[in-house]
Amino acid sequence: MAGKPFLYTIVSPRLLDIYDVTNSIVVVIDVFRATSTIATALYNGTDKIIPVDAVDKCIAIGKATPNSITAGERDGKVIEGLQHGNSPAEYPRNFIEGKTLVLTTTNGTKLLHMALNNGASTVITGSFPNLSAVCNYLMQQQKNVFLGCSAWKDRVNIEDTLFAGAVVETVKEHFTIHCDSSLMAAEMYAAHKNDMYSFIRKTTHWHRLAQYGLEKDLEYCVTKDVANVLPIYKEGALVI
Amino acid sequence: MAGKPFLYTIVSPRLLDIYDVTNSIVVVIDVFRATSTIATALYNGTDKIIPVDAVDKCIAIGKATPNSITAGERDGKVIEGLQHGNSPAEYPRNFIEGKTLVLTTTNGTKLLHMALNNGASTVITGSFPNLSAVCNYLMQQQKNVFLGCSAWKDRVNIEDTLFAGAVVETVKEHFTIHCDSSLMAAEMYAAHKNDMYSFIRKTTHWHRLAQYGLEKDLEYCVTKDVANVLPIYKEGALVI
Repeated sequence: MAGKPFLYTIVSPRLLDIYDVTNSIVVVIDVFRATSTIATALYNGTDKIIPVDAVDKCIAIGKATPNSITAGERDGKVIEGLQHGNSPAEYPRNFIEGKTLVLTTTNGTKLLHMALNNGASTVITGSFPNLSAVCNYLMQQQKNVFLGCSAWKDRVNIEDTLFAGAVVETVKEHFTIHCDSSLMAAEMYAAHKNDMYSFIRKTTHWHRLAQYGLEKDLEYCVTKDVANVLPIYKEGALVI
Repeated sequence: MAGKPFLYTIVSPRLLDIYDVTNSIVVVIDVFRATSTIATALYNGTDKIIPVDAVDKCIAIGKATPNSITAGERDGKVIEGLQHGNSPAEYPRNFIEGKTLVLTTTNGTKLLHMALNNGASTVITGSFPNLSAVCNYLMQQQKNVFLGCSAWKDRVNIEDTLFAGAVVETVKEHFTIHCDSSLMAAEMYAAHKNDMYSFIRKTTHWHRLAQYGLEKDLEYCVTKDVANVLPIYKEGALVI
């Protein structure tokens, strides 16, 4: 008997190379707000999303790509030289449909490229707006899974860990889980799944972003299945 | 007004150098079992404990040190060439009093030396048997504090995070805490402080060590204040 595949939670990109991710699925998680925005833009009909790790690359790729939009924020403000921000609310269907989104994020893009460089066979992105799509995919694939939290400048954060916990709670019967990070994440999610909007007000990220008036955005980012698609990385872009 | 000093929890040694620990206190935490054994041996009258990261160093220092004992385990068994193991139960007063313990541990010793190399002004060790001594010291010192979990081969573990949570719960009013790891740790501790013996049976470490018959040991390691001294690192050794 082959047994169930393994599932691990990696709470910071710094911890990725402790694990052997070859031939595995890595779920990149950046709840506030990159992977919430990615799910939303794809749900609303964007053609593809090119994640890049630097502003100059974002501008160059934007110029070279027809019908594209450049986007990125630092500290809650649109980066100079780019057109749009990181808010999922900026990407309704009547704006984004059929376009290519070139998105610069620091934490999430770094983790995505690390996962590919370390031999992951598949990289998908997850956040609460596409929780069920992620869980259904993982249960279907029967492969080892690493839930990769993008964290904040490598520091562990609650919101990404909380999403990992939501996934663990949903898929746990289908995996072998010898991983304290997964147990802790699932416990935290179980304790707070019914008070998410108040719980996220305790996070350090909330205190950083709430001063920019992004409370509604952050609440959206922890709302389940409102953009329930599966972003998967293929040939340099996230598509569904 | 200078404000309260900062407190951070570092859930794996890999994450230590994200933080500036200069002029700060680092608490090295290795609940199963190094820092529980360290507190116990010092409480029972050992003269000093020399932590070393390699077996050959342990043997060499043991030979060069009068009235010393070498100790260390891998996978729950005494390492060949050393005299004793990592169990706190091996170090009662009538055995250890007045002696020097040369202890090889992997996770905890590595973190201790990293903290010193990164400029920490003080390194102490903590586990449940000396919880109150650690908390009282931190509240007295009025310096920035880093709760450093030794983890297991850099993987986050529940037992060390749980101890960090116990410290956070006790000292939080005295510190500025902008740290999601600390919030998560304190939440987990609050949820389980009254069912510690059953909760630790869920950890991966329990499953690794329980097969060696160490259940009583592990329960001792999460029992509060039964060896309530403050091990502090001075001139190459932990002393009280």
